[in-house]
Amino acid sequence: MTMYDIILKKRNGKSLAKSEIEYFVKGCTDGSIPDYQVSALLMAIFFKGLSRDETFLLTDAMVRSGDVVDLSSIEGVKVDKHSTGGVGDKTTLIAGPLAAACGVPVAKMSGRGLGFTGGTVDKMEAIPGMRTSLEAEEFFSLVNRAKLAVIGQTGHIAPADKKLYALRDVTATVDNLSLIAASVMSKKLASGSDAFVLDVKCGSGAFMETVEDAKALAELMVEIGAASGKKTVALVTNMDRPLGRCVGNAIEVMEVIETLKCAGPADITELSLRLASHMICAGGAAASPDEGRAAAERALRSGAGLEKLRELIAGQGGNPAVIDDFSLFPSAALSLTVRAEADGYVVGVAARDIGIASRRSGAGRETKDEAIDPAAGVMLHKSVGDAVKAGDILAVVYGNDGAKLEDAAAIARSAFEIGSEKVKPAPLVYAVIA
Amino acid sequence: MTMYDIILKKRNGKSLAKSEIEYFVKGCTDGSIPDYQVSALLMAIFFKGLSRDETFLLTDAMVRSGDVVDLSSIEGVKVDKHSTGGVGDKTTLIAGPLAAACGVPVAKMSGRGLGFTGGTVDKMEAIPGMRTSLEAEEFFSLVNRAKLAVIGQTGHIAPADKKLYALRDVTATVDNLSLIAASVMSKKLASGSDAFVLDVKCGSGAFMETVEDAKALAELMVEIGAASGKKTVALVTNMDRPLGRCVGNAIEVMEVIETLKCAGPADITELSLRLASHMICAGGAAASPDEGRAAAERALRSGAGLEKLRELIAGQGGNPAVIDDFSLFPSAALSLTVRAEADGYVVGVAARDIGIASRRSGAGRETKDEAIDPAAGVMLHKSVGDAVKAGDILAVVYGNDGAKLEDAAAIARSAFEIGSEKVKPAPLVYAVIA
Repeated sequence: MTMYDIILKKRNGKSLAKSEIEYFVKGCTDGSIPDYQVSALLMAIFFKGLSRDETFLLTDAMVRSGDVVDLSSIEGVKVDKHSTGGVGDKTTLIAGPLAAACGVPVAKMSGRGLGFTGGTVDKMEAIPGMRTSLEAEEFFSLVNRAKLAVIGQTGHIAPADKKLYALRDVTATVDNLSLIAASVMSKKLASGSDAFVLDVKCGSGAFMETVEDAKALAELMVEIGAASGKKTVALVTNMDRPLGRCVGNAIEVMEVIETLKCAGPADITELSLRLASHMICAGGAAASPDEGRAAAERALRSGAGLEKLRELIAGQGGNPAVIDDFSLFPSAALSLTVRAEADGYVVGVAARDIGIASRRSGAGRETKDEAIDPAAGVMLHKSVGDAVKAGDILAVVYGNDGAKLEDAAAIARSAFEIGSEKVKPAPLVYAVIA
Repeated sequence: MTMYDIILKKRNGKSLAKSEIEYFVKGCTDGSIPDYQVSALLMAIFFKGLSRDETFLLTDAMVRSGDVVDLSSIEGVKVDKHSTGGVGDKTTLIAGPLAAACGVPVAKMSGRGLGFTGGTVDKMEAIPGMRTSLEAEEFFSLVNRAKLAVIGQTGHIAPADKKLYALRDVTATVDNLSLIAASVMSKKLASGSDAFVLDVKCGSGAFMETVEDAKALAELMVEIGAASGKKTVALVTNMDRPLGRCVGNAIEVMEVIETLKCAGPADITELSLRLASHMICAGGAAASPDEGRAAAERALRSGAGLEKLRELIAGQGGNPAVIDDFSLFPSAALSLTVRAEADGYVVGVAARDIGIASRRSGAGRETKDEAIDPAAGVMLHKSVGDAVKAGDILAVVYGNDGAKLEDAAAIARSAFEIGSEKVKPAPLVYAVIA
């Protein structure tokens, strides 16, 4: 078997055998196959695709390219929740506590933000004292005690994905459903949970721009999960507009707290409940998503979810007093206000632009190793469907670098589309794939 | 401009601009663009193709990636002849002397053999004393004096092609018409002649297996030549069976000499005359290919062609006495005879197998830097259409390594297909594209 023959076979539209896929993934991981052959195969896959079976095999080989976390010392059906990446998406920190409050163990390994969408780990680190890098034993014992812990992903999870993603990123071979699905699911499967609730974002601020593509990706990931014997549910949700009103790190955590106090924006509240309902059902704490929904709503209204967040923060060394005193969060020295220039209605708030504005303000990384500013970000004061008058505040950008903030404000301004007719926002959830 | 954007653009089926093609060729040549991005683009080109204009631009950028040989100190219209590679193809050493004998200057830079087809330079080096590496001044002065010199290609000709070909070879992106045409024509155009006669081989022993593909390649190369202001003619010719009876190095030169003595095989004689007729016409020594044909036949019958070969050999340090005494050529210590096992007719002699048998005997290179055995090769005693009786000699393989020779004999045996009905050989020339 040679890599040349594997490239030729896929280029000619044939299916790769298990041994060929394993040879490729192994050689890619250990560096014995040169990058130029890997990228040629990736481009051939872009054009000729991978069948369902090939995608399962690829995912499986990628899972086995590194460590597979053993969560067996945690009691119960461990449920993981994953989003493909959205602007203002802080639902992990709401749905996680709600599910945990219902008795479902959530042992979450999360990534840092890349591109213009933030990572849960970055957001958590905006809480003073919070540790996101724990030894395995401490992680397991936290989940056994509090049903919830969230840590950063280790380097030994699916190293093949790390290598492949880095190459895809520079060779225009990212946007292939099979490669995306294998990338996401290999990391999930290697992280050791028993069930997965996936939030597949769809729209101008997401990787999948059409509902059709997002549904296809969701279906494929659910099939991969099922093929690995793991219960997997996917929601296809809107990412044309940002989720909630806060985009950044500290300000997103504040919005998490507000939401768990039953005072959050409707979209964030609703999506978190939907995700939590499936997590609770997948974890066996409810017989159906409807029963899970009822349980999640009880946990929200009773304050049990908020208490789980408090436990999570305290358990990982953070200062839980932030929950009652937002002044304990890092705050920005500078802010700029974006105002409406004319009367009308907000007909669109481009999620992508708001994400880029947030990153530019300092809340995200423009290069891989850049530090982020926990206090920076974009606060939206108007959203789709709202009436505005000239001079009304549309958004405020926060940060500590004046020049960057000017850029961020200009980008945030361009995200708002003002029209003369009131529009109804597009649905929040397009589909549930189980 | 970034290489990423160029890959994405081609991947999405768009045409690349001149500046993008130049950026790519420059970065590929100087190493500033990593191989994994080059190979991703090559695979995208394989699937999405290059337009005529993109192919012209690519060829032009490849020509300018290195030296362009200045042949202006050679008088007359310099004509180059190039074959895409065939088994037993020694026509350069026959058509070249015939054209030179008619006054057409032939300043040929030739490659060494790669794969299973031999290179003209390797064949020439089978002549004792022959030098194929000359300084430019000596080369020019030889062509001015004798109208003919044949040397090895220098390293400064189209370095982009060298780099691209090496990557294509290991990433299954060789067989794309635009990339093949740009590769051939960039080397030809950089070698400085004024007109080109191309022999595009077609059949099981050639890169292009169908007449349709070979014609398309021939048309594209003729268009590239024309777009560069160079008169270019292409013949599409048969390579299902070997050309002539000798495949190797010394034995091919012997067949060249026999042919120039009017005692060569019909196919070699005819194809050499056809190629020479176009060379003579392209060089301005005849008003039409028909007149060129008449001139070439006169040069053959009069012995003027043979005299030109003698001048060529003497001019480059070789011993011209080989022309009258084949015992001066290196000879092989070993030979094995392949005999017919049953009565019948030869219905096929697979060129590819004979090429591989020749290489295995020692006449070609199995790895890039291997030395070749000038005395090794395959002599065919029967060809397509011949009647055979059990025990008749089909071929003899020559060499100096017993084990390799056993392999070579077995491969040569498998090349012969014996049937019960006499068949008519396929045409020698399928098309002339001008």
